[in-house]
Amino acid sequence: MTPAEKRNRLRAILKGDVCKSPATVWDALSARVAEAAGFDCGILSGSVCSATVLGAPDLALQTLTEFADQIRRITRASGLSVFADADQGYGNALNAMRTVEELEHAGLAGLAIEDLVMPAQFGRHREPELNSVQEAVGKLEAALSARQDASLVIAARTAALRIEPIARVVERTRAYAATGVDALFVTGLGKVDDLDAIRSAVDIPIMLGSAPAIPRAEAQARGVRFRLQGHAVLAVCAKAMHDTYMHLKADGDAEDLKSKMATAEEMARLMRVVDYQTWDDAYLN
Amino acid sequence: MTPAEKRNRLRAILKGDVCKSPATVWDALSARVAEAAGFDCGILSGSVCSATVLGAPDLALQTLTEFADQIRRITRASGLSVFADADQGYGNALNAMRTVEELEHAGLAGLAIEDLVMPAQFGRHREPELNSVQEAVGKLEAALSARQDASLVIAARTAALRIEPIARVVERTRAYAATGVDALFVTGLGKVDDLDAIRSAVDIPIMLGSAPAIPRAEAQARGVRFRLQGHAVLAVCAKAMHDTYMHLKADGDAEDLKSKMATAEEMARLMRVVDYQTWDDAYLN
Amino acid sequence: MTPAEKRNRLRAILKGDVCKSPATVWDALSARVAEAAGFDCGILSGSVCSATVLGAPDLALQTLTEFADQIRRITRASGLSVFADADQGYGNALNAMRTVEELEHAGLAGLAIEDLVMPAQFGRHREPELNSVQEAVGKLEAALSARQDASLVIAARTAALRIEPIARVVERTRAYAATGVDALFVTGLGKVDDLDAIRSAVDIPIMLGSAPAIPRAEAQARGVRFRLQGHAVLAVCAKAMHDTYMHLKADGDAEDLKSKMATAEEMARLMRVVDYQTWDDAYLN
Amino acid sequence: MTPAEKRNRLRAILKGDVCKSPATVWDALSARVAEAAGFDCGILSGSVCSATVLGAPDLALQTLTEFADQIRRITRASGLSVFADADQGYGNALNAMRTVEELEHAGLAGLAIEDLVMPAQFGRHREPELNSVQEAVGKLEAALSARQDASLVIAARTAALRIEPIARVVERTRAYAATGVDALFVTGLGKVDDLDAIRSAVDIPIMLGSAPAIPRAEAQARGVRFRLQGHAVLAVCAKAMHDTYMHLKADGDAEDLKSKMATAEEMARLMRVVDYQTWDDAYLN
Repeated sequence: MTPAEKRNRLRAILKGDVCKSPATVWDALSARVAEAAGFDCGILSGSVCSATVLGAPDLALQTLTEFADQIRRITRASGLSVFADADQGYGNALNAMRTVEELEHAGLAGLAIEDLVMPAQFGRHREPELNSVQEAVGKLEAALSARQDASLVIAARTAALRIEPIARVVERTRAYAATGVDALFVTGLGKVDDLDAIRSAVDIPIMLGSAPAIPRAEAQARGVRFRLQGHAVLAVCAKAMHDTYMHLKADGDAEDLKSKMATAEEMARLMRVVDYQTWDDAYLN
Repeated sequence: MTPAEKRNRLRAILKGDVCKSPATVWDALSARVAEAAGFDCGILSGSVCSATVLGAPDLALQTLTEFADQIRRITRASGLSVFADADQGYGNALNAMRTVEELEHAGLAGLAIEDLVMPAQFGRHREPELNSVQEAVGKLEAALSARQDASLVIAARTAALRIEPIARVVERTRAYAATGVDALFVTGLGKVDDLDAIRSAVDIPIMLGSAPAIPRAEAQARGVRFRLQGHAVLAVCAKAMHDTYMHLKADGDAEDLKSKMATAEEMARLMRVVDYQTWDDAYLN
Repeated sequence: MTPAEKRNRLRAILKGDVCKSPATVWDALSARVAEAAGFDCGILSGSVCSATVLGAPDLALQTLTEFADQIRRITRASGLSVFADADQGYGNALNAMRTVEELEHAGLAGLAIEDLVMPAQFGRHREPELNSVQEAVGKLEAALSARQDASLVIAARTAALRIEPIARVVERTRAYAATGVDALFVTGLGKVDDLDAIRSAVDIPIMLGSAPAIPRAEAQARGVRFRLQGHAVLAVCAKAMHDTYMHLKADGDAEDLKSKMATAEEMARLMRVVDYQTWDDAYLN
Repeated sequence: MTPAEKRNRLRAILKGDVCKSPATVWDALSARVAEAAGFDCGILSGSVCSATVLGAPDLALQTLTEFADQIRRITRASGLSVFADADQGYGNALNAMRTVEELEHAGLAGLAIEDLVMPAQFGRHREPELNSVQEAVGKLEAALSARQDASLVIAARTAALRIEPIARVVERTRAYAATGVDALFVTGLGKVDDLDAIRSAVDIPIMLGSAPAIPRAEAQARGVRFRLQGHAVLAVCAKAMHDTYMHLKADGDAEDLKSKMATAEEMARLMRVVDYQTWDDAYLN
């Protein structure tokens, strides 16, 4: 599957009638498992990249090129249409242009640029801060102009719901939509009313961050076509690892782990062993 | 903990009386969890690197620099003494020198160079092949000469038990030990007799690959000081991911995953959130 | 210019009537200068990559991913159609497949896989060695099968002229051409007769490594469409650096260097400063 | 030479009586040539990294990890004590901590964190802007606390001379020196009076950016121990490349380039061919 095909599959979802969810993925193995479980789309967020590459919280500590490397590993290993939360575009509008260039080159299907000031400014005492509308619009326009493949999805992501009154948020989203972005990505949504307000102002497809209070059907009825389910899988892996390490530390029997392990056949399928054997037979003998 | 301290901890294990095991780790998150579970040492094998970085089987497809990048992520994120299975030294004796240089620089505590021909030669029909003793010795001498920090552990790894009669294997290991390597790493061990034969020929510490038939006490009594427990944790993660993805694909309730997830507090500890908050208070406000 | 456009420009050269030469390039700056000097094509060889990235001789010490990173920097910075000397495909036929995947992804226009055994085998005393014809053909078939974009040029490179009698060389090249490669890349050519012999056996376009004894017109008349001019530019830079460093070490006047420097305007053009100013005005203010 | 030895050599210069200059270097080749020309110290600036890696102007477009990669190539290839202009620490105080961690790990001898707001903020119309003194001090304290090897030199770099009146600049430098940094790095110095004013306020060693109006002896007499000579060598290389490419484009005789090229013997020395031959003889035969 070419990058353009992966991008067009994501575009078809955005233009369709159904609200789909991507799998949270972060390396080649998670991408392969997500694909095996039937997912078409994957997402790499800044927080998950930071946790797995750096072991650090979500504080804009990873670099654009580290992030792009992880995207490349995921797109190389799988046919997933990968969407990335590209934070604030890794700097100002010029950095946002480079962000689009790097991530497009890494084979991404789509990305969101957020209106949050990142990394945190001096003296904010962990209070989040938004870019001015004008600055955010400048970044989105810059990102759009940097796109080489017109099929790459670019979304405007707003963190405003947690920071500003809804009227201001609506204003923002209207300005963002006017730049020509392909979708609006909303985080921190707590009630359907807010979604209604936004929906009445913009008619581009909506993407939703984790929003446990909003049932999928209600979101779908209001134009949401892509919706995150949180990154629970990472905490599941952390617990599974911990339990296994504790068992092995106590020199527990490996047999006892069997029921918790993917079988050798499943691992071989995930690693595409049959393909390599075919190539080995054809070209190496 | 400095790289030299991590190396000396591994040396102390090799010189001690007890057979210890490392945790299989591959990224910053797994390293942090292994540390939290009480492990002092970690191991990155070529197969685990290939699976998580490339989604490919263990066919010498990853590059030395990709491997070194993963080592760097692990050593940066954790205080583990990390040992690496550095395959055949990523080429000939000159490449083995570069392998030592790169991996030492990445902060590794120890590494093994194996006597297996890798990648597979043309026309072998997947039959493994050994380097000549002379060639393997040349690589080990090269590796030893490339070490900058004398505390870095360099082990000779032999795959000969699966390929050659025990008498030849013993000869090999004697030649390897004579190069001055810090340990002998034996894979494919099926019976205690073979370990006895090797032990009678070499008096350097022994490391063991997965050897389910050999009880730890018996291995320890014969000079084994470091012993792998297999890479089950990767297959455990694959299954945990798969179950989670299937649940989410079916739009299952996130609440149902709670019991399988590390808690938010545990994740925060793994990410060292408190440290970052302290630094934020001290330097950013 | 998209990768496919860059590839098709190289294909047009191969299918044309004229023998063209690429500029030796190795980083973003050299690529920009080559473009400014009117070159359409660039070449990155293993030796030049090794010299600039590692400071090492051409002994297969650089890794595939290091090589791909340099290619990426060159293709990102310039519109050159970049051709790469991809050594022996960085391992066996399976590694050659990964080589094609990585370099295609990096935006390369074309690459050559050589029939030389690399890195040097044990006990050869620096005598070069060729792959068997069967092994070389396996690698070329593997490389061709790994191509995603059919416009990527894949050439068979042979070092046989320096090692085997011409009759054997001709046999080799016939077998290579039969795999469907897009071109035959010949190194070590010393006389026109040998080129005639090869030409009479294969009718695909020919690429020539450095061959000072063969005039361009004679090469062109015999199907050569792409011809290296050696990597003199690197040694020119080394001398220019050395002279400059010596001057500065002696605390020489910076004014004295003026006549040897690109002007500030030229440097600004090479760095595309005007583009960034335009973007700054449009998106950052 | 170990990293600590390289760092202590730089410290000795700072504590000595003489004003020394580093060579501008950017890759393995330039580092080797600088060493051959007799330099002890090298410098990698953000602008030179951006030019050679990205082909872009000095607008904070390169990432920390790209910058660290270049440092690693330089420190791996040479015995130079490498000093880096680490821009603003690649973000806020927490990013500055990661900057120190990454660059220390890459083998750097010293680095400067600057008080300039980077990348440019929205709406500044290319007018540079300084961090508040408090913010800059927070970054320096963060950087110092992140140092693992106490021999690593950390300097406070100020761009204030071009932006603020001298009285304010003096106040800044006093606050910076009070953090315990090893040196003060001053850019944009136009007159000796300003240096006198700064010198009378701080008694740590001073580093100077390009300051053509200040004779070395006068700088040295006022505590300057490290002084850049500008990055002319890059523009010299750009012109040397351009002339060579133009010559080759016109199919000029390669012989004509001879007098401008380092000889084959010089190139072999730069690539340390003799070492590799010794190793080849010892370990590969």
